[in-house]
Amino acid sequence: MGNSFGKLFNISSWGESHGGGIGVTIDGCPPRLPLCESDIQKELDRRRPGQSKITTPRDESDQVEILSGIFDGLTLGTPIAMLVRNKDARPQAYDEMKEKFRPSHADFTYQSKYGHRNHEGGGRSSARETIARVAAGAVAKKILSFKKVEVRAYVERIHDLLVPNGLDFPCLDAVEASPTRCPHPKTASEMEARILEAKKAGDSVGGSILCRVRGLPVGWGAPVFDRLEADLAKSMLGLPATKGFEVGSGFEGTFLKGSEHNDLFESREGKVRTSSNRSGGVQGGISNGEELYFRTAFKPTATVLQKQQTVNQEGQETELMGRGRHDPCVLPRAVPIVEAMTALVLLDHAMRHYAQCESFDFS
Amino acid sequence: MGNSFGKLFNISSWGESHGGGIGVTIDGCPPRLPLCESDIQKELDRRRPGQSKITTPRDESDQVEILSGIFDGLTLGTPIAMLVRNKDARPQAYDEMKEKFRPSHADFTYQSKYGHRNHEGGGRSSARETIARVAAGAVAKKILSFKKVEVRAYVERIHDLLVPNGLDFPCLDAVEASPTRCPHPKTASEMEARILEAKKAGDSVGGSILCRVRGLPVGWGAPVFDRLEADLAKSMLGLPATKGFEVGSGFEGTFLKGSEHNDLFESREGKVRTSSNRSGGVQGGISNGEELYFRTAFKPTATVLQKQQTVNQEGQETELMGRGRHDPCVLPRAVPIVEAMTALVLLDHAMRHYAQCESFDFS
Amino acid sequence: MGNSFGKLFNISSWGESHGGGIGVTIDGCPPRLPLCESDIQKELDRRRPGQSKITTPRDESDQVEILSGIFDGLTLGTPIAMLVRNKDARPQAYDEMKEKFRPSHADFTYQSKYGHRNHEGGGRSSARETIARVAAGAVAKKILSFKKVEVRAYVERIHDLLVPNGLDFPCLDAVEASPTRCPHPKTASEMEARILEAKKAGDSVGGSILCRVRGLPVGWGAPVFDRLEADLAKSMLGLPATKGFEVGSGFEGTFLKGSEHNDLFESREGKVRTSSNRSGGVQGGISNGEELYFRTAFKPTATVLQKQQTVNQEGQETELMGRGRHDPCVLPRAVPIVEAMTALVLLDHAMRHYAQCESFDFS
Amino acid sequence: MGNSFGKLFNISSWGESHGGGIGVTIDGCPPRLPLCESDIQKELDRRRPGQSKITTPRDESDQVEILSGIFDGLTLGTPIAMLVRNKDARPQAYDEMKEKFRPSHADFTYQSKYGHRNHEGGGRSSARETIARVAAGAVAKKILSFKKVEVRAYVERIHDLLVPNGLDFPCLDAVEASPTRCPHPKTASEMEARILEAKKAGDSVGGSILCRVRGLPVGWGAPVFDRLEADLAKSMLGLPATKGFEVGSGFEGTFLKGSEHNDLFESREGKVRTSSNRSGGVQGGISNGEELYFRTAFKPTATVLQKQQTVNQEGQETELMGRGRHDPCVLPRAVPIVEAMTALVLLDHAMRHYAQCESFDFS
Repeated sequence: MGNSFGKLFNISSWGESHGGGIGVTIDGCPPRLPLCESDIQKELDRRRPGQSKITTPRDESDQVEILSGIFDGLTLGTPIAMLVRNKDARPQAYDEMKEKFRPSHADFTYQSKYGHRNHEGGGRSSARETIARVAAGAVAKKILSFKKVEVRAYVERIHDLLVPNGLDFPCLDAVEASPTRCPHPKTASEMEARILEAKKAGDSVGGSILCRVRGLPVGWGAPVFDRLEADLAKSMLGLPATKGFEVGSGFEGTFLKGSEHNDLFESREGKVRTSSNRSGGVQGGISNGEELYFRTAFKPTATVLQKQQTVNQEGQETELMGRGRHDPCVLPRAVPIVEAMTALVLLDHAMRHYAQCESFDFS
Repeated sequence: MGNSFGKLFNISSWGESHGGGIGVTIDGCPPRLPLCESDIQKELDRRRPGQSKITTPRDESDQVEILSGIFDGLTLGTPIAMLVRNKDARPQAYDEMKEKFRPSHADFTYQSKYGHRNHEGGGRSSARETIARVAAGAVAKKILSFKKVEVRAYVERIHDLLVPNGLDFPCLDAVEASPTRCPHPKTASEMEARILEAKKAGDSVGGSILCRVRGLPVGWGAPVFDRLEADLAKSMLGLPATKGFEVGSGFEGTFLKGSEHNDLFESREGKVRTSSNRSGGVQGGISNGEELYFRTAFKPTATVLQKQQTVNQEGQETELMGRGRHDPCVLPRAVPIVEAMTALVLLDHAMRHYAQCESFDFS
Repeated sequence: MGNSFGKLFNISSWGESHGGGIGVTIDGCPPRLPLCESDIQKELDRRRPGQSKITTPRDESDQVEILSGIFDGLTLGTPIAMLVRNKDARPQAYDEMKEKFRPSHADFTYQSKYGHRNHEGGGRSSARETIARVAAGAVAKKILSFKKVEVRAYVERIHDLLVPNGLDFPCLDAVEASPTRCPHPKTASEMEARILEAKKAGDSVGGSILCRVRGLPVGWGAPVFDRLEADLAKSMLGLPATKGFEVGSGFEGTFLKGSEHNDLFESREGKVRTSSNRSGGVQGGISNGEELYFRTAFKPTATVLQKQQTVNQEGQETELMGRGRHDPCVLPRAVPIVEAMTALVLLDHAMRHYAQCESFDFS
Repeated sequence: MGNSFGKLFNISSWGESHGGGIGVTIDGCPPRLPLCESDIQKELDRRRPGQSKITTPRDESDQVEILSGIFDGLTLGTPIAMLVRNKDARPQAYDEMKEKFRPSHADFTYQSKYGHRNHEGGGRSSARETIARVAAGAVAKKILSFKKVEVRAYVERIHDLLVPNGLDFPCLDAVEASPTRCPHPKTASEMEARILEAKKAGDSVGGSILCRVRGLPVGWGAPVFDRLEADLAKSMLGLPATKGFEVGSGFEGTFLKGSEHNDLFESREGKVRTSSNRSGGVQGGISNGEELYFRTAFKPTATVLQKQQTVNQEGQETELMGRGRHDPCVLPRAVPIVEAMTALVLLDHAMRHYAQCESFDFS
């Protein structure tokens, strides 16, 4: 359970790190969208391993095959199934993990919950599953682009290296310019050094990703349980290695008084706008037309190339030497994943909004 | 849309601040649970307005009526409907809001989305809706108590006043001892003063609530989208005035290296345990048997008794003087709400776990 | 579980025959629909007991109270809660049923499933629950009327008394002209006599209801699991006392050959039409613009005023004398229920269709 | 939308007749079930084309590949993805259908709904999609077998050739003995002749399938909308070519009086049983421990090898000569599909029942 996401633009994810592959099915995609494999591939290429010296050397080209839902280059409105085969799997590298639980991984909880697990590369708990999210998110992003909605995530902080405040909404090229996916060149090169330093020490680092959305119309979202920020929070905390989420002023904002924190309304270019944006583009769970922005915390990668204390499946204490190909820092590759999930949440809410609020005229 | 929550223990919330009342229906409650109105009322009393001098003076006793689903003092297994009538509504106090949007409230977004709204007390966007969540959560908490799962939330920080690190798991009485719902007496009295100071200045303050759960078995939760922390994050960001969520080491933890952050496994009293708990009780989206803890940020109340710039429904700039009964700080009353949502998430995952993992024997 | 219906226009039903009342909450209703209690009441009046000499004498006026979701006479887009209190409950009439299971009722299965039940009037299994469906369906019908979609059900057969073939689409008045809700006067009066005859004998009769829908646009419905006729079948077999469903040519049509059964396409008034309508208005699960029609079988009422063999809760054989106020034939009162469920299914599919197929332009 | 089924044992179906293949993902499968491809293949072999002279000659071996969710021969509890490639596709055989709508097929409605369609072999509306259901159903059937629940469907009637009343619950071999899947040898050979006669005439025939389930415990199912028979009805009317459904006494039973129709309770072998079974094994939407049985009507195949009147995409009248490989009668191959859907419905309700009613002890 828990492997599908979205009410109207619904995706079902499947696959393990070392099984037949990773795949996803989209149900609810609008018909007649021009779509081909390169639309998906370009996003998968941003996520794939081995793309730079600061990512895992696992060599997967992650070529996507679209199995259904497209005809004559246009979506049919029926399910779109996509498949990425696993190629460079090395199950034998995980033999030791068959018996021993890796600290701060999901080995122990999966074993306890299911009484059974695929220990190779973490099986279903591997971040390799996010291929499914990126592939589906690529479709959502393309649809949103027809509504002029632009989703841009970037690495804002690695360890204690933080981009300066007040960055303009960066273009995609600026984000992609550095392997760190930090659009501020000076910080980006410091980050790169810090990641390599951690790698060299067999250690890892974490940080935070900022996601910004512009072009959002007023009115997407819903009251009560499915607030836009609630669904975004769920989508982020559903990613591997995430530990926190904040929207708008976030935790910082709680140090302000109400009179300091409120976003005052004003009239700008004939529109109702706010003079500040501590709300982060959402009020009462519904977009207010300002830039939507939120931040997600990613912990340092759990796999470290050091000897660590642990227990085995029999509950006996033992030691485990970290092995396997891994990323010393997950954030650069997490950027397209954050964008994908954001696009999925936004599109789903857009479709709900159209269904309820823009399809009936009772006047 | 978006007014129901939970897959198996499903609740549907309805009602507005100044309409006929607030209510909730629970579908999926296990049968034969002893349940009466006082089980619900005691939690509603912790949430109700007018309970102390630091809360809104709106005088609502918030008496619950159970309309269905109980017979001879036991749940039937069929829907439990609960109703709380609105009593002390003063719609005329909101006449000015009919035309003007309150800053950092949902007036503008509701009006834009629906083309129509109930301006009295915020209508559906009022925090009064959380009565529904607390009532349903009271049932979930009672069920969890039979599984020895204990959910305890408390105010950890108001403005910049923070409880010291390392507090033991407090008992309910310790939390309830102060109107602030902070279980650390010294900090609690400073918080109380700070809130009264804000109230006197017609201003408001925010802060954070910590929620801790003990007694959780290993194995509740799910991989991928519906990780336990993902559903908790959604439940928290779906509450009014929340801006952030973090589980375990949270944002702080991202300043550590992997070697510093990992929770090492050890064998303790015959069980697999971790020697630290930066994971916060959840690994791979599934409970690991350690204490679950997470933190939610609440912004300062948007209603301040000061003149603020805004626009009216015609988009013209104007001013609005804050009025209406309100809380200078929402956190003390939010504590039972946080507990309620937590219990709802946990029980829903418990039921999913039983259905999938503990109901079949293939050996 | 199983007490809510609909994906986008979602309703949650609650209540028992002899508890606090029956209610329903609608989530997903479009905003700005003019709606007042009389819109609901007129449909409830068609369902209520005591409306004629061929229905149960239980005296319930079934007055509805709208508790939320309306402001200034228009829907808000947020949940609409509706409540009908139970008035003429006579729990003591059911004392014997506390111990004995009524044949062909749900007493035994509820007791077995839940280990507990409300034996008064059947509790949750009472057809009184259909108040919730009729109330919600009244809203759906009103919305559909703005799309020129008209839903008309009527009693087609009681016992072996069948209306002649080839009836025109009847107006509402023609259906309401007889207490039997059969729009063919001659058959209607024979039916009335047959029902009274059964009543006099302490017995009961069944039959079938035909439901016809005109004005349906081409394109509502969905492939595969949620075909329009699949959701209609579910909605009908979810009604108390139903045993069968058929759409278009139904079971009869399976005695034809393909060459006899196919509906040939032709061009009529500039539209693609079929020259016959054995498909029943739906092809591949999607409406084709022809009249939609389907038939539902209702068994004879299980409560008969005769002595019947049964067992008690201890499993011992005993006898039970039928008692309680009941309908000798459920069909006349089931007509508005069939219409309500049909409207709910159609509106839900309309909203899905708008969301997916009419809200995006990729050209 | 509408391409997934089941709340807890949830399946997502995808694929077209002439695209990359057909597939299905199961989410919610219990862990540690022994499962391999042959478990699936044996059911697919019962459904596959070309299995006898009364089925379509399309030559597809329909070999299944399990892509995920199994490790060391046991299910992992995480999604099981299965893929069947299309092999013997002949898209050019459908060139004429690119422009012309086949009567009583879904060509026109798909084109109208989506503004686009895959005309090759009916695309998504092809019965080839039912591979997904049979594959998923094979898993459900295997799980149910551990609970001693046995699902058996068979062809009961072809055209007007009906098996005699009162057949014992047949074993699988008896059903499989004839290519018609009718377990009554004499009727089966008449049916075979009738089908071949229709085939020779370029025509087609329909009929009905009976499905019987034994070993069902008391208590599966749910009140109100998700009654067991309601979900079964939906699952059947969601199959291609179905026009009707009846459970227990069905339409026939509505010609009886209540006193004739009721199933009286008795005590048999220490259990509460009914002396007749017109209810069909379900009362109030919940299984009562008797044999569950229901009947589904399948219309004659719409594809006939004759010239038929139709219109083209421009709405002009024209003629179409039936072509393409097809079945002169769909029922024999529909038998495993009916079983698969039945197993899916039953298992889903079993899981719901365990979650709500058998996982908590409040005594």
